[in-house]
Amino acid sequence: MSTAKPVFRYPVPELKDLPDDVREKILAVQEKAGFVPNVFIALARRPDEFRAFFAYHDALMLKEGGSLSKADREMIVTATSAKNGCLYCVVAHGALLRIYAKNPLVADQVAINHYKADITPRQRAMLDFAIKVCLGSASVGDADYEALRAHGFDDEDIWDIAAITAFFGMSNRIANATSMRPNDEFYLMGRLPR
Amino acid sequence: MSTAKPVFRYPVPELKDLPDDVREKILAVQEKAGFVPNVFIALARRPDEFRAFFAYHDALMLKEGGSLSKADREMIVTATSAKNGCLYCVVAHGALLRIYAKNPLVADQVAINHYKADITPRQRAMLDFAIKVCLGSASVGDADYEALRAHGFDDEDIWDIAAITAFFGMSNRIANATSMRPNDEFYLMGRLPR
Amino acid sequence: MSTAKPVFRYPVPELKDLPDDVREKILAVQEKAGFVPNVFIALARRPDEFRAFFAYHDALMLKEGGSLSKADREMIVTATSAKNGCLYCVVAHGALLRIYAKNPLVADQVAINHYKADITPRQRAMLDFAIKVCLGSASVGDADYEALRAHGFDDEDIWDIAAITAFFGMSNRIANATSMRPNDEFYLMGRLPR
Amino acid sequence: MSTAKPVFRYPVPELKDLPDDVREKILAVQEKAGFVPNVFIALARRPDEFRAFFAYHDALMLKEGGSLSKADREMIVTATSAKNGCLYCVVAHGALLRIYAKNPLVADQVAINHYKADITPRQRAMLDFAIKVCLGSASVGDADYEALRAHGFDDEDIWDIAAITAFFGMSNRIANATSMRPNDEFYLMGRLPR
Amino acid sequence: MSTAKPVFRYPVPELKDLPDDVREKILAVQEKAGFVPNVFIALARRPDEFRAFFAYHDALMLKEGGSLSKADREMIVTATSAKNGCLYCVVAHGALLRIYAKNPLVADQVAINHYKADITPRQRAMLDFAIKVCLGSASVGDADYEALRAHGFDDEDIWDIAAITAFFGMSNRIANATSMRPNDEFYLMGRLPR
Amino acid sequence: MSTAKPVFRYPVPELKDLPDDVREKILAVQEKAGFVPNVFIALARRPDEFRAFFAYHDALMLKEGGSLSKADREMIVTATSAKNGCLYCVVAHGALLRIYAKNPLVADQVAINHYKADITPRQRAMLDFAIKVCLGSASVGDADYEALRAHGFDDEDIWDIAAITAFFGMSNRIANATSMRPNDEFYLMGRLPR
Repeated sequence: MSTAKPVFRYPVPELKDLPDDVREKILAVQEKAGFVPNVFIALARRPDEFRAFFAYHDALMLKEGGSLSKADREMIVTATSAKNGCLYCVVAHGALLRIYAKNPLVADQVAINHYKADITPRQRAMLDFAIKVCLGSASVGDADYEALRAHGFDDEDIWDIAAITAFFGMSNRIANATSMRPNDEFYLMGRLPR
Repeated sequence: MSTAKPVFRYPVPELKDLPDDVREKILAVQEKAGFVPNVFIALARRPDEFRAFFAYHDALMLKEGGSLSKADREMIVTATSAKNGCLYCVVAHGALLRIYAKNPLVADQVAINHYKADITPRQRAMLDFAIKVCLGSASVGDADYEALRAHGFDDEDIWDIAAITAFFGMSNRIANATSMRPNDEFYLMGRLPR
Repeated sequence: MSTAKPVFRYPVPELKDLPDDVREKILAVQEKAGFVPNVFIALARRPDEFRAFFAYHDALMLKEGGSLSKADREMIVTATSAKNGCLYCVVAHGALLRIYAKNPLVADQVAINHYKADITPRQRAMLDFAIKVCLGSASVGDADYEALRAHGFDDEDIWDIAAITAFFGMSNRIANATSMRPNDEFYLMGRLPR
Repeated sequence: MSTAKPVFRYPVPELKDLPDDVREKILAVQEKAGFVPNVFIALARRPDEFRAFFAYHDALMLKEGGSLSKADREMIVTATSAKNGCLYCVVAHGALLRIYAKNPLVADQVAINHYKADITPRQRAMLDFAIKVCLGSASVGDADYEALRAHGFDDEDIWDIAAITAFFGMSNRIANATSMRPNDEFYLMGRLPR
Repeated sequence: MSTAKPVFRYPVPELKDLPDDVREKILAVQEKAGFVPNVFIALARRPDEFRAFFAYHDALMLKEGGSLSKADREMIVTATSAKNGCLYCVVAHGALLRIYAKNPLVADQVAINHYKADITPRQRAMLDFAIKVCLGSASVGDADYEALRAHGFDDEDIWDIAAITAFFGMSNRIANATSMRPNDEFYLMGRLPR
Repeated sequence: MSTAKPVFRYPVPELKDLPDDVREKILAVQEKAGFVPNVFIALARRPDEFRAFFAYHDALMLKEGGSLSKADREMIVTATSAKNGCLYCVVAHGALLRIYAKNPLVADQVAINHYKADITPRQRAMLDFAIKVCLGSASVGDADYEALRAHGFDDEDIWDIAAITAFFGMSNRIANATSMRPNDEFYLMGRLPR
């Protein structure tokens, strides 16, 4: 798990010293992605938090059903993480957004200015709501729910949007507070035609 | 689980319909507290999120070791939840803060203005950092770590402060987006001499 | 007038050294409340300001007529003082709000997030306007007046809301700049059934 | 008291209908200034508030002693009223500032950008503090007092600065909420050599 | 080109050392205005930037056609420069606004609070848009164009409003960063009846 | 000059209808870059503004001398344009930054969070200042100059940083107000090893 650039400002554990379940999850993601995203290495030094973090992540991002596509979910993460100035999440989830959306441009667009992005009115409404949850959740209320229902989102979808925004708001703050670096591999992912 | 006032804006599940582990955790908290805090009922409608949420919560709030007392942890939650305008968390965790700190005044103080609260300089530094993580995590850096180390916090403590702030920042957004109500019982807890 | 905790960051006068009218007003409030709220002691060191402050206070808060109840007036004070981070006013006027409204929960609710408080739509509109006067008075205009008239407020009521907000905006700044402490007695007032 | 342009958005009283003391104060200011500033006419429709307002005003602005000159006091009003977007107070008190300071330029300077104004370092520190009381009083503390003492202000002067800022913060909000117009006469006062 | 007060924080060039075209433009403005506005002297030390700045300025401010009057253009500059805290531009262009509008009051009004200024609803809409471009251009969109068209502005006018705001946003930042002083002559211009 | 996606919200001119100098500049950039960046097409519909814009641009960005490298200049543009939410400038100048810096990662880093970017302390100070000029130029003063001089910037360099920030602040506002799209070609430029 050595790397030329630091994973984050804390020391990182040796793979062999990790609990089996944590190590296995890391090896599985490495197998699938070809590298280990730094968030796995960073959180592994606290196995209980690692387990809860990824359990929550998977419950929200790998959820079956609902009307949010995988690309929609990553779009929420990319747009709101940019509002929080989280380099790790914008770069890592922007990569996933490009891949799921099969669109090499959309991640940069929603990260910088979702009003100018090539997205549908439905996605625009989804991001308007997510950004409100991100920056001013205190005043979320009936009118926000109505605005989303007008685009075909049901209340479970709305929960999903809010919860994804909230979860990554947590992730953004942990990454920022610990100076977590996005792996270099993420920057180019999904930018080239396949 | 019926209540005169709504738990939040979503329908709540019947206790009997919940998975065993979820139901048991709810019954355990009821046994201990004398009532079921609404966050348990609210999240129970999504068991996977319930499990991950409380696993994360317990990893951070029930953690052994480190120099943060239980009162310190609840103080972080109360102060930062107020910045996010989260009624549920300020009321519920303010109650816990009063109890753990054996101080009936401190929760209202840190919720409204931590600069004027009867807290130690060390707690003041802890809250200054937590509030920065809450409101402007993008610029957290070396100087912030140094400021905390000067008060005797080590880097694991700093992780704890950041992670608690981040976790409840998530909780605040979910509670705000779903209009989660604090149970009436919380408001008076810890205010009367025992 | 000695106290274990300081009234504020300035020295406080001896009761015997005060002008008669100031001393009498202090003794009268002590008689009625059972203690002397610190704002009386603090301002007494400048008798002319003391007299003007309480004359203004009484003109706004003890005014006969109009459609604002005593609870409405204290609700405005509590909600806007929280926006200004004024511990003294939130704690002291929150106590009065609980008493006048005969509601042990509402003060904490409007202090933390008036959107989630158990208040009427009319009170919600009243607080929306008060908070706008508090935080962004420059753009108050016809539309704000119309919104309040739709809830049955007449222009004199609107003046009252604006003037109460403005007066306590002054009070908040003086209390914050002088680190005025709320008396311990306020915290529990109105929280217990009578 | 008729005027081509409205005094503010409320009806104004006839001079003959006012209580004697209110009318006399108005006639006195007219005698001295050559016209009646609109704030006198506006507040006269509520005599108790009129009396308290001007008693407070005079206690702060006509106070004997202390190290704040009349120009300093008006400078505080002009700079902080600009932050609140209060046209009435910037125009009216800017006029007084020009006259007391015998400086036709300084009012526009401190209203637009006090950092670029032709003022002394002591006045700069005074305005820095006043603007903090105006915009963020919650965090005023020891360091702010120290910064002012370094420029020779004692604690009574600091109270004066804070109280003047607070009082006109009230006045700004009332003027904004009622659309109070500055009299045309103020705009040119103090701009021409005498 | 000597002056008792500094032009800005950089040294200023001698008139004789300037390129002919720059010197001629300066002499022409001096001939017309009776003095040389400091922005000409300041930028002259970088002739290429001088030429581009005034070419852009003239393209926007001296443009023929369109429905924006010269007073409208200067009103945009005055109102938005105040939002940026640019003393130079508010004072210099406020003077031009007073002259073109033949109105000695309007510059102070739009600089402090355009909501309370004696302007037409059309000018109010124009300034609302300009201020949005100044402070939050990221979200400018169709609704903003519609709002202006409702007041008779066509898309070329809207370009003009946006471009003037943008150009002086640049000018404001250069003036602020270099502490450019407005010439004393500007303060009184257009305030006296002719 | 036809394109599947709109250049911006205004109609675009035919190349043949443009003045010779404008057309030649466009053809020259097409020759060099392989495509015509949309800003050239957009501004060409107003030739005088086109000429002034690019004259200013070239004076700042192609300037000889000084200690700012071409990469430094583009880094300022990328970081401050992100603060203004300008998709066009972040994407187009981020591409140039990657190329000049021979670094495929740095543009995304400074756009999202310059505190976490792989840049030198000197570049960090440069961006701190540029962002202050971008977001709060009113308070730029001596301390800011001192901070930059400590990193070896002289006053001409500081002018360059401020002027580049100011110029692109203008460009950002024009691009946002007109919904100017970055050409698709920019997104991938400089991301692949050569």
